[in-house]
Amino acid sequence: MNANVFRKGAFCSKSGAYINTRIVDIYESEPVGSHLSVKGWVRAMRKMKDNVFIDVSDGSCSKKLQVLISKTKCTKSLTYGAAVEAAGSLVMNRNGQLELAAEDVTVVGACAITDGYPFAPRKSYPPDYVRQFLHLRPRTNMFGALLRVRDVASHVINEYLRNNGYIHVHTPVLTSNDCEGAGEVFQVKPDSENLVKEMAKNGMSLEEAYFDSRTYLTVSGQLHLEAVVRGLSKVYTFGPTFRAENSRSRLHLAEFYMIEAEAAFIDTLDELMKVMESLIKHVTSQVMEKCADDVEMLHLADGNERSALSVFERPFEVMTYDEAIDILDRHSGNFVSQVRKGQGLGKEHELYLVKHCGDCPVFVVDWPHDIKPFYMKQSRQDNSKVSAVDLLAPQVGELCGGSLREDNFLLLQEKLHKAGLYETLGWYLELRKYGNVPSAGFGMGFERFLQIVLGIPNIKDTIPFPRWPHNCKL
Amino acid sequence: MNANVFRKGAFCSKSGAYINTRIVDIYESEPVGSHLSVKGWVRAMRKMKDNVFIDVSDGSCSKKLQVLISKTKCTKSLTYGAAVEAAGSLVMNRNGQLELAAEDVTVVGACAITDGYPFAPRKSYPPDYVRQFLHLRPRTNMFGALLRVRDVASHVINEYLRNNGYIHVHTPVLTSNDCEGAGEVFQVKPDSENLVKEMAKNGMSLEEAYFDSRTYLTVSGQLHLEAVVRGLSKVYTFGPTFRAENSRSRLHLAEFYMIEAEAAFIDTLDELMKVMESLIKHVTSQVMEKCADDVEMLHLADGNERSALSVFERPFEVMTYDEAIDILDRHSGNFVSQVRKGQGLGKEHELYLVKHCGDCPVFVVDWPHDIKPFYMKQSRQDNSKVSAVDLLAPQVGELCGGSLREDNFLLLQEKLHKAGLYETLGWYLELRKYGNVPSAGFGMGFERFLQIVLGIPNIKDTIPFPRWPHNCKL
Repeated sequence: MNANVFRKGAFCSKSGAYINTRIVDIYESEPVGSHLSVKGWVRAMRKMKDNVFIDVSDGSCSKKLQVLISKTKCTKSLTYGAAVEAAGSLVMNRNGQLELAAEDVTVVGACAITDGYPFAPRKSYPPDYVRQFLHLRPRTNMFGALLRVRDVASHVINEYLRNNGYIHVHTPVLTSNDCEGAGEVFQVKPDSENLVKEMAKNGMSLEEAYFDSRTYLTVSGQLHLEAVVRGLSKVYTFGPTFRAENSRSRLHLAEFYMIEAEAAFIDTLDELMKVMESLIKHVTSQVMEKCADDVEMLHLADGNERSALSVFERPFEVMTYDEAIDILDRHSGNFVSQVRKGQGLGKEHELYLVKHCGDCPVFVVDWPHDIKPFYMKQSRQDNSKVSAVDLLAPQVGELCGGSLREDNFLLLQEKLHKAGLYETLGWYLELRKYGNVPSAGFGMGFERFLQIVLGIPNIKDTIPFPRWPHNCKL
Repeated sequence: MNANVFRKGAFCSKSGAYINTRIVDIYESEPVGSHLSVKGWVRAMRKMKDNVFIDVSDGSCSKKLQVLISKTKCTKSLTYGAAVEAAGSLVMNRNGQLELAAEDVTVVGACAITDGYPFAPRKSYPPDYVRQFLHLRPRTNMFGALLRVRDVASHVINEYLRNNGYIHVHTPVLTSNDCEGAGEVFQVKPDSENLVKEMAKNGMSLEEAYFDSRTYLTVSGQLHLEAVVRGLSKVYTFGPTFRAENSRSRLHLAEFYMIEAEAAFIDTLDELMKVMESLIKHVTSQVMEKCADDVEMLHLADGNERSALSVFERPFEVMTYDEAIDILDRHSGNFVSQVRKGQGLGKEHELYLVKHCGDCPVFVVDWPHDIKPFYMKQSRQDNSKVSAVDLLAPQVGELCGGSLREDNFLLLQEKLHKAGLYETLGWYLELRKYGNVPSAGFGMGFERFLQIVLGIPNIKDTIPFPRWPHNCKL
């Protein structure tokens, strides 16, 4: 294990002529002839008669830099997986590719390839295998690409919303309410029993001792956004969200990221759908442009067709819930199982509707009042419906959910009473009492978005450290 | 409560001549003479003989737009706090200020000012009072300013790190390890007892049923970043972090935000401190520039001197822990209570050291091994010390903590054994076995940073929905 002691200034001592450079910068701007060094990891090696070719990656982009070094200068610890610093001159090789003609390659940290290292060079592994080694997964080509795309997609989402006047608000993870009312929440209390006992007031359960109330992990920041939007007009949040379900599907995580936007003075679903559609289209095209190499690598590896990339190019379709049910009814039995009017849609139904629209994303609007949460606005034309919209997309089904919010004080009060939420959500009702405005908003699952754009079948391969039932490794 | 029914298209119907415009855009670019409408909230009203002056805010900037309307056109529901839409022509008034000469002011939502609304016009309230109404706080001038600054500061931090090659990684909130080993963690389990029972495997406690392990809220993303940095070279995270302490100080929250950055191939504290100092200085100057109005408003209201703004302008000081103890020793008794060599510093000591440096932020380096976490790198010159750095700043004391990470496999193995962490952190040790590199990183408390820059005494006034002992409202 001595090889992993970093040799400080190994190159500076030689007159400091080698400028340490990131590989992404080399490909973008470094002229042939530069004296430079790169620091990274050996992804592959090819030994020739006198020389060794080493593919070095530093994770700054999907491209590796080929390093050429004389065999005589190679040490035994220079293997696949090792961390290295290579210094030399940048040349254009016979194949027209940039190459570092190295004077020196120092092994910064050896890789114990014969002692449990799970990856071999130039081999691609099924995601299920790689996922067993979450701590080493970021070193694989594929997952490095995913992480870079995820970074860019996050950045572009923030940028788009800010450029359109939305202010980023950090809604809380810890909350005393269950926004969706579905009961699929995680409960939180201090780990220390002594602390809990010390803090418990008379007559309070230990679950309530720390915060004076039962406390959960957020399932949505929407209710909090609704408070803030009545002061800032346009707000959004982009953070971790939690569901305590026993689902092992390829579309669910216990901890996932959601973009939620809320705007005041919106009173039609049309306006809301415009925001959703333009956000998704803008972000997708920006990701394709800024991460072309990474996106291509991810698609090629999975055998996906490039057509997946065009999912978001056409105008999205729109249909009502009633129309959706009619379509499903007409095809039930042979192609899709039956669903009754008034019921929610299953994944199978969602995907069927998308297929029915020619694999085009489709907004389903005007849902039955009885199967949607209390905060959705009752339709003034048909009080059995609420002004809600789900966006269904290929591969994942539901990608976004949104609605106009009930802005009538009396109707909301009645609904809160019925749902038994009047006590805990009195503050939410009060928002309608003081300078109230119509507002609307939506949430988009970030990982599902990445699944579609990158053609990734399992959601667990879109997030650095996935958490799902029976799995919270690391 | 009928006034809160939004009157759709009230202005469009009149030939659509009024373009709805955000107030920030009006001040930035709208020429005098434009026909436009604004939508927002009444912050103040002055009734004159024939006319009424209304200050309207839409939260897009700290400035209000003055709206002038004939008294005859005002309805009874047009009061302080109401949500309005005002339409007319933009003029320059006699005082050289932009003003909307309104044809029409529609009350979108009335404000029940005599029925519990806690704020009155043109009055400023102590933060402790405002904090009782977290759901209405975003409508106050002061907290609106805070939220905009928080948004810009977040944005600038992301921008700076990305421009410097750091890749944003979403480290998990749910984790099976306690990075700092201080035991101040929150524990997480599903709220549904049925779900827990259904999922519990033989011999497992109910706490472990969902994830097959006890699961906590993260206290730091550092260990996860260390896994990712050994593939991407430079990474950061910026998200919620949790501490289950019974502290009611003006500097602690149960849920707070932390920026954590980690870079591979760094092996001196000097390099790390350069990153910390330049990040802080860049972000501060950008916030001052982009949020000049909001920052000034926050400072004026609190009676703070402008000098607070210059905290981060000078070069930061550097001293060793031993030097710090000497300074404290020399002044103990009269000015500061005693601290023994080898002990940690209290808030009082931190602030005294900052004062000693002329109110300049100061890096304290080379800390005693025994009082710092297992992951810090043992000094090769003095094995009683670790290569750790705390940045102390005026007003808050500790603002950042960072270190070189122990990169020697055998030393780390020994430390994990001693700390009883070998079982749970085997994966972390493995990072040193395969292509290891020296790495270093730091974390900065985002709310404390805002406290300093904005001169906000209580950390609870820097975050939209603060959580602290006995308080998790909303």
